[in-house]
Amino acid sequence: MAEDFTVTPYQVTGEIDYDELVERFGTKKIDNALLRRLSKYGEIHHMLRRKIVYSHRDFDWILNEYDKGNKFVLYTGRGPSGPVHIGHLMPWAFTKYLQDLFDVKLYFQMTDDEKFMFYDKLSMDDTRKWGYENALDVIAMGFKKGKTKIFLDTELIKTMYPLAIRAAKKINFSTVKAVFGFDNSYNIGSIFFTSIQSVPAFLESYFQKKKVPCLIPCGIDQDPHFRITRDIAEGLDYYKPALIHAKLMPSLMGSEKMSTSKGDMTIWTTDSPKTVKRKIGNAFTGGAVSVEEQKKHGGKPEICSVFNYNQYFFLPDDKALDDLMQKCRSGAIMCGECKAALAERVIEFLQRHQERREKAKDILEDFMLRD
Amino acid sequence: MAEDFTVTPYQVTGEIDYDELVERFGTKKIDNALLRRLSKYGEIHHMLRRKIVYSHRDFDWILNEYDKGNKFVLYTGRGPSGPVHIGHLMPWAFTKYLQDLFDVKLYFQMTDDEKFMFYDKLSMDDTRKWGYENALDVIAMGFKKGKTKIFLDTELIKTMYPLAIRAAKKINFSTVKAVFGFDNSYNIGSIFFTSIQSVPAFLESYFQKKKVPCLIPCGIDQDPHFRITRDIAEGLDYYKPALIHAKLMPSLMGSEKMSTSKGDMTIWTTDSPKTVKRKIGNAFTGGAVSVEEQKKHGGKPEICSVFNYNQYFFLPDDKALDDLMQKCRSGAIMCGECKAALAERVIEFLQRHQERREKAKDILEDFMLRD
Repeated sequence: MAEDFTVTPYQVTGEIDYDELVERFGTKKIDNALLRRLSKYGEIHHMLRRKIVYSHRDFDWILNEYDKGNKFVLYTGRGPSGPVHIGHLMPWAFTKYLQDLFDVKLYFQMTDDEKFMFYDKLSMDDTRKWGYENALDVIAMGFKKGKTKIFLDTELIKTMYPLAIRAAKKINFSTVKAVFGFDNSYNIGSIFFTSIQSVPAFLESYFQKKKVPCLIPCGIDQDPHFRITRDIAEGLDYYKPALIHAKLMPSLMGSEKMSTSKGDMTIWTTDSPKTVKRKIGNAFTGGAVSVEEQKKHGGKPEICSVFNYNQYFFLPDDKALDDLMQKCRSGAIMCGECKAALAERVIEFLQRHQERREKAKDILEDFMLRD
Repeated sequence: MAEDFTVTPYQVTGEIDYDELVERFGTKKIDNALLRRLSKYGEIHHMLRRKIVYSHRDFDWILNEYDKGNKFVLYTGRGPSGPVHIGHLMPWAFTKYLQDLFDVKLYFQMTDDEKFMFYDKLSMDDTRKWGYENALDVIAMGFKKGKTKIFLDTELIKTMYPLAIRAAKKINFSTVKAVFGFDNSYNIGSIFFTSIQSVPAFLESYFQKKKVPCLIPCGIDQDPHFRITRDIAEGLDYYKPALIHAKLMPSLMGSEKMSTSKGDMTIWTTDSPKTVKRKIGNAFTGGAVSVEEQKKHGGKPEICSVFNYNQYFFLPDDKALDDLMQKCRSGAIMCGECKAALAERVIEFLQRHQERREKAKDILEDFMLRD
């Protein structure tokens, strides 16, 4: 039996049983029939093939509407509390895949208000600064100019606030308590916030003055917000947003705690090659206690953070991943070699990303949406 | 012993013991020393002389600062849930007196967001419409053009929201529960709202980029909001706003419930002379059961809503009010005559008010403040 675990946008503890989470949240698994249907539109993303993006709400309805010529918009976002790491990019890469596949608009929300209200140490200047810093990473992912609108909550609030209070009027504290596990000690801004997170699901409908379907690709930890959004949407005369959920990318620590500081187990998008090598060098793996032992009995890719990085992001080719898994299990590859190979991939990826991130500074304004 | 009563911005029940309220809220009574000090600046308003405006927080500090050349700003407001009645004008008239006496700026907040969130039946269109309708009544009171800024929350939200969430971060649900008596069934917009009501106390400081004292004239039922504002102000690096409190103007029903509908016991600023006559004709008085009885034993002005109207608003001359009281007590004046005299005063007042209200339509834009 799985250890007890908690998943909300504000707390993730314990080892997550993703199958059980689908039951708890009442979402649907993405099954093979849905994947076959999706293959009509183009290649199936490796995160779908590998069940990293594995759950949804009404994604089939989104495709029905799309087939009828009723295009949806995408909505995802980020809480700008600091720099962006590789784990953050994972759902963004998937969002880009969806944008390309369906050629649709994306609303990208920077919840600078949320991060200010939830983090004692962050000022509004901090979260706004991070909002702009993080926007560079978003743009670096290659989202379509003209079809991608990035906004900070505090800079679109004149548009959002009337929609947010219409949402807020339909949500009481009992709901927020039950969904997020808040108690009476939470500040009233954090209690109000979920209504702000609902708004982008309705923005396109608001601008177009007609109901437009919305699909939210996100980490499954964000689902609680959008469960509320879905509950109130029809009462506001909008469609319920559909959702497509990713598992949370494990850190380089694996699920074990290590003596190394957490910061060192996180690869930031601005890290240098040397830093990447060091961090991956220190990563938790599924290797055996000694080289001899590992050559004899092999490693355990299923608990290895290096393997996870490859699986989630850096080795999209299934054949290559499968080869790696076999080699690991059979003891044909040692952790050092495997780490070095991953480091090379990450360094190459980050080099490109950092170049694009630098260029993004010149085109930032083409992406920003403000009142 | 006084009957049990409750006074919050959202609930006023029972017969209010205003002396006890000062104890409960921890405010200070306006004493004769303070009135003497105030007389330095000009005439003492009849609402002060009659202890209708009777309580304060730090009003003496406001005068100290003023004497040092540190001018304050005034802040008051209105929840635009419908038309304005005479009772609403009472604190506004006092606010105008303060503006004239000290020649200071006034921020007038229309909480269209609040009224939408607290009233099931009101849409945002409704509360915005009432915001503009009510603004005409504000302007008709004769506030100074150029020194008076009226705003709807939803139209100044881009400026207000960052200040509101800074406030919200310092207020938890326990506080809101204790201060307003809310429970978990309250919607999260209504829970958040007090942070929006705090903001205008800091607006001038925000615009001027330096700490500016603020004085809030208001009905004492609004004090709970500003107790919270005062608690958080210094943490936001602003002055605590000072307050000056009015008693709540009793309706034409007196404190007794009458069979007449409540609407008929309320004189709207747009009422015709005929309607005013009818409503005052139906008012609850301190008259005796028969004319004979009243001629013999006199009436009871202390429970009479007609006398209250004169005392609060329509007979600012103390000598005239005292004469009326004597006549009533001695049985020298009957209710019919007294009602007719009040109706005449109200009709005359409203005629002027309605003319000014009409003219206000042309100058409305000179008063409105938006992002």
